[in-house]
Amino acid sequence: MNSVQPVEIIKIEKNEQSGYSDLVVTEEPLEIRLGYGSESQRAQFTLSVTMRTPGNDEELCLGFLYSEDIISSIADVISVKYCDDLGSNEGRENVMRVELNPALEIDTPSLQRNFYTSSSCGVCGKASIESVQVHCEIITTNSLAATKDVLFTLPEKLRKAQQVFKHTGGLHASGLFNLQGELLVHKEDVGRHNALDKLLGNLLLKDITIARSAILMLSGRISFELVQKAIKARIPIIAAVGSPSSLAVDLANEFGVTLIGFLKENKFNIYTNEERILS
Amino acid sequence: MNSVQPVEIIKIEKNEQSGYSDLVVTEEPLEIRLGYGSESQRAQFTLSVTMRTPGNDEELCLGFLYSEDIISSIADVISVKYCDDLGSNEGRENVMRVELNPALEIDTPSLQRNFYTSSSCGVCGKASIESVQVHCEIITTNSLAATKDVLFTLPEKLRKAQQVFKHTGGLHASGLFNLQGELLVHKEDVGRHNALDKLLGNLLLKDITIARSAILMLSGRISFELVQKAIKARIPIIAAVGSPSSLAVDLANEFGVTLIGFLKENKFNIYTNEERILS
Repeated sequence: MNSVQPVEIIKIEKNEQSGYSDLVVTEEPLEIRLGYGSESQRAQFTLSVTMRTPGNDEELCLGFLYSEDIISSIADVISVKYCDDLGSNEGRENVMRVELNPALEIDTPSLQRNFYTSSSCGVCGKASIESVQVHCEIITTNSLAATKDVLFTLPEKLRKAQQVFKHTGGLHASGLFNLQGELLVHKEDVGRHNALDKLLGNLLLKDITIARSAILMLSGRISFELVQKAIKARIPIIAAVGSPSSLAVDLANEFGVTLIGFLKENKFNIYTNEERILS
Repeated sequence: MNSVQPVEIIKIEKNEQSGYSDLVVTEEPLEIRLGYGSESQRAQFTLSVTMRTPGNDEELCLGFLYSEDIISSIADVISVKYCDDLGSNEGRENVMRVELNPALEIDTPSLQRNFYTSSSCGVCGKASIESVQVHCEIITTNSLAATKDVLFTLPEKLRKAQQVFKHTGGLHASGLFNLQGELLVHKEDVGRHNALDKLLGNLLLKDITIARSAILMLSGRISFELVQKAIKARIPIIAAVGSPSSLAVDLANEFGVTLIGFLKENKFNIYTNEERILS
């Protein structure tokens, strides 16, 4: 399945009108099913359905399970495969089954509940941050730093790497750079949380610890959810073309993450932990 | 609770560095609880938790219930209120309870399942479109049309109306315009689906039928989910600053919606049902 699809469109410009063949980014649902339990008592349930751009589906599943704290390393997973036991071929590439290691304990009722709702006093930003604290550590690697000249170069490097965006203008991207500004890995998706999950899944297959001395660059805005996923992988610096939300700033502050927004080729804003940025 | 929050930032520009007081858009979780059943047997469950920008929470709840096909008019709702029975005040403004009319039949197991997963052959774009067909009608009002000159004016009008975006650069907007290009209502949120739900909730409180002869203008990209919500309210024309996804185009095509992307002050692309656009 392709990450872009052809469409016939009509282009209107001032008083001109013309037919045109164009490309749009593919959006399709992906269902993630978990197989778990002991060898004699295997069980399965559907963990989630997300709208995503096909491609890197194995990495998307792994990154999602990792950032949701269901797995902590690739050793927790036996296999990730498209379901081949479906009654029809249709949609086969939209259903993945992840076989978890029988040794892994899975609390299915709590997975089926939304994790924000566990607080008896209702939900709030503070409770959201506390729920991350259960699973993640504060990042204390204060000796790591990047220069502002390196940061200035990142948006252009990420844009150049975005193959699908070039054709459709329709994709979010997540890129991981080292402190010298070299692109280590990048992923694209119609959903920005999926682009980051694909990136984290890719790192899990290689070496997730490289995230601990890297810069995460995001093509859009910075939400709570994106910071949470980055913290899980202990990424010390997050930079984005867009603006952060209040809860993204609070979470980055709480966990020792350096948060940079409105990054352009000659300027940016630092929201938290500025000690990691050198002039 | 405010839709913006103050933060202290460091602005870096070339070789300059200065402290600065700025504003970021507020992001907080909102839990929606449903009260349902007969007067003698009332029950409650949590329908969803979404990260949203506080403000217009009543409309957000109503629009969400409407676009998820749980309610079809305001008559299905007795009240929408912040929960006042929480143990602590903290997060009180992040939990809303919607009391549904006892006459309304609620299928809680199916609400607690994700609706995409009902297809036994797995999930696919076709199944996603079929699931919308169960609840929505094809839009056949082909006599409605807008001129391209009206469309050219919409992005600027929506941007001018966006109060919070002006301060933070961090918000998505949904605006409803009549065919003459007058802004009828607009809503903003950190999540684009929330901005549209707030708009639909506002219409439900006034008169949802005005959507049937209006243009929906979106500040960003067009996903399947946004087209689905618009179809539920039978909006015949959707226009956006950004690009549509493949499944957004397919769904608009299937339901007779006119879909316009990359709308600027002098050009745009028509993806489907061009007969509603006049030169």
